[in-house]
Amino acid sequence: MERTLIENIDKSIGKKVRICGFASIIRDQGSIKFLVIRDISGTIQAVIQKENTKAQKIAKSLTLESVIEIEGTVKEEKQAPCGVEVNIENLSVLSEAELELPIPVVGKGQGETDLSKRQDWRFLDLRKPERSLIFKVWTAMEQAFREYWTENRYIEIHSPKFMSTPSESGAELFEVKYFDRKAFLAQSPQFYKQMAMASGFERVFEVGPVFRANPSFTSRHDTEFTGYDMEIAYIESHQDVMEEEQKAIAYMLTQIKEKFGEDIKKYYDREIVVPSLPFPHVTMKQAKEILAKLKVPSEKDGDLSPAEERKLCEYIKEKENHEFVFVTEYPIDVRPFYHMRIEDNPKLTKSFDLLWNGLEITTGAQREHRYDILVSQAKEKGVKLEPIQFYLNFFKYGCPPHGGLGAGPSRMLMKIFNVENVREVTYLYRGIKRLSP
Amino acid sequence: MERTLIENIDKSIGKKVRICGFASIIRDQGSIKFLVIRDISGTIQAVIQKENTKAQKIAKSLTLESVIEIEGTVKEEKQAPCGVEVNIENLSVLSEAELELPIPVVGKGQGETDLSKRQDWRFLDLRKPERSLIFKVWTAMEQAFREYWTENRYIEIHSPKFMSTPSESGAELFEVKYFDRKAFLAQSPQFYKQMAMASGFERVFEVGPVFRANPSFTSRHDTEFTGYDMEIAYIESHQDVMEEEQKAIAYMLTQIKEKFGEDIKKYYDREIVVPSLPFPHVTMKQAKEILAKLKVPSEKDGDLSPAEERKLCEYIKEKENHEFVFVTEYPIDVRPFYHMRIEDNPKLTKSFDLLWNGLEITTGAQREHRYDILVSQAKEKGVKLEPIQFYLNFFKYGCPPHGGLGAGPSRMLMKIFNVENVREVTYLYRGIKRLSP
Repeated sequence: MERTLIENIDKSIGKKVRICGFASIIRDQGSIKFLVIRDISGTIQAVIQKENTKAQKIAKSLTLESVIEIEGTVKEEKQAPCGVEVNIENLSVLSEAELELPIPVVGKGQGETDLSKRQDWRFLDLRKPERSLIFKVWTAMEQAFREYWTENRYIEIHSPKFMSTPSESGAELFEVKYFDRKAFLAQSPQFYKQMAMASGFERVFEVGPVFRANPSFTSRHDTEFTGYDMEIAYIESHQDVMEEEQKAIAYMLTQIKEKFGEDIKKYYDREIVVPSLPFPHVTMKQAKEILAKLKVPSEKDGDLSPAEERKLCEYIKEKENHEFVFVTEYPIDVRPFYHMRIEDNPKLTKSFDLLWNGLEITTGAQREHRYDILVSQAKEKGVKLEPIQFYLNFFKYGCPPHGGLGAGPSRMLMKIFNVENVREVTYLYRGIKRLSP
Repeated sequence: MERTLIENIDKSIGKKVRICGFASIIRDQGSIKFLVIRDISGTIQAVIQKENTKAQKIAKSLTLESVIEIEGTVKEEKQAPCGVEVNIENLSVLSEAELELPIPVVGKGQGETDLSKRQDWRFLDLRKPERSLIFKVWTAMEQAFREYWTENRYIEIHSPKFMSTPSESGAELFEVKYFDRKAFLAQSPQFYKQMAMASGFERVFEVGPVFRANPSFTSRHDTEFTGYDMEIAYIESHQDVMEEEQKAIAYMLTQIKEKFGEDIKKYYDREIVVPSLPFPHVTMKQAKEILAKLKVPSEKDGDLSPAEERKLCEYIKEKENHEFVFVTEYPIDVRPFYHMRIEDNPKLTKSFDLLWNGLEITTGAQREHRYDILVSQAKEKGVKLEPIQFYLNFFKYGCPPHGGLGAGPSRMLMKIFNVENVREVTYLYRGIKRLSP
């Protein structure tokens, strides 16, 4: 007998079905027993009548969160939570759970165990519908971005994570024992996505892990996270990259709202807004002026602190009713050597960050593709040339003007669900003190 | 003026266009100069008339593989390679290439530089249309698999690559300096995709890098490669996993044939065949019997050597006219502890490999989800329990029966293009002696 998903059960009223899932609630009302069964699509109430002695016996020793299979008839039942109920004919236990659960799966109050313990038992924590929703949305989000990219002639690359040299800077670098020598884990696919530009791929994207030996415990940082990277050729400036990004994000949020808008509202009280185009944008100079007027203290010239990012977004939200804002033209001292500089103001770069409701989710720029200028900018920043000569070579034999960005999907999910901690939206978080499960 | 892609040029006869790309061929015929320009979509011949002195001057010092931009009018020209030609009005150099290329980009004969040198200069090697085609196909292949998965309710996971303990075996493990302790790089997402089963995700997939400290130099092995992993719950046996895989592969090859069949035929002389369902399958026992009849020496009981894999596929190809064959029921000594065993023959596992034209591209199995049996199988294999207790815990609190597979996209690409070396289909290959570029 074919399995029926719980979300489809109301199409089967009067029919016999087979359902598999976890025993989420077990309620013994004397002679009648009620079970609530949960599968990936929802929950349903099922009832074992007094006469069904075989099922009664099995249910008597049934433990919470055991995996069960039931066969029974679907009937309308006004008192049941969703208006239908399954009258159990056969009940069997596919996998028995131990009696004592280390963290509760059902129950809002009890469910709020501390985050660290929830991480220890992440596989139980993820059984909650509001948690699995995050990964359903992630799946749809990533697929939406990929649809945008593949429909717009992007080529996918899988660049190596082992490098002989740092991809960004020597800081926060993980070292690997690589046979009889050392390797480093890529902190980003930066050099390799630019290589694709030198190869004439014109438009590329990559989805993959990036590694940062960040020793901090903040709610925004981890030692390993998924990165979305893209790079496009034959651009005029960083504005072309921003245009691509805002189109891709609007497409993604249209999909998410359509497929999961109601669930996100229900579980997280967050109304997904499809952003209008173009996104607001301000230069770093303008951002600092706005923040000065708002009397937000500036912690660093030419860069925004998390507090400044939040305040700027609040201001834009109020003024333009928009959740996003591009901040452009970062000064050269806060940007890497490969960012192109503005011709008539060479202290500034053709770069941008994208902020979403107070959080930076993207960094991008036009890249310097002219070999001599790139070399001089590297020298100026104190970057040693020899270890990156392989990268500099990309610009020696013809390389189209290009730019791109790196974006963080877990940060986007924090904003989609309006949650404060990256641990909540990461399948298995990794940090300085966390390597398991 | 909007840029025109070369593949669309024949729709612009009589019109003025702007084209960007690499100067692929430069031919000086006295007063008239011919250029062949290459972008990601194709190549086109362009001509500079004697009267256009400005462009003539620029072309005179133009180096091969420089990035150029031309504006001109498209006209029919019978003598041009594709029947049309662009009459150049303006020519400008966007990025000048050095005069001496370390490896040639154009020219079949010269292009066959040795593989190691081609890897050193991979960014130039990838400029060849037959090479970029591989990554266009990879993009379409991955998107096709993902379409299959997302349309069939799979949830995507991005599991951590840092682990405190090996995910498969202690062999071929990379060690990372992780702050004040050690971490290991995941050799597969095996434990973590099974965790998703314990979380009730029911169907998951993952695309990501896997790391194997394999010191060999074979044409099939590397230290880092992309893995496609999937895992599904509520299965009856490994046959359910095989059914999913063959459907996904048939869908993928339908897409590839439709989009790139002609190009693959043109550049690689390989006719893509969409496989019929179901795929042929033989048990390991049957495979060994077939090979014995063919007088192929058996190197190891219960497992197939590369030579045996090739011979078995040739046999199936001839007999059933099919490029694929599942080999099932591997004995327990060649399979990991977590493979489920066959009830009435506990020396065999509910497992399979998928071979494609002589190469193993997948390993899969139903997993043992019963805690006590899993523990005893681990002990029997000499696996220490303490380091994997976090994994064993997944099976303590209810876990649906499940199974899954791991597949290698680069091996699939080897078979799509009929090439012998994994280095040809890897963006940037990593091996014991290769960490750069």
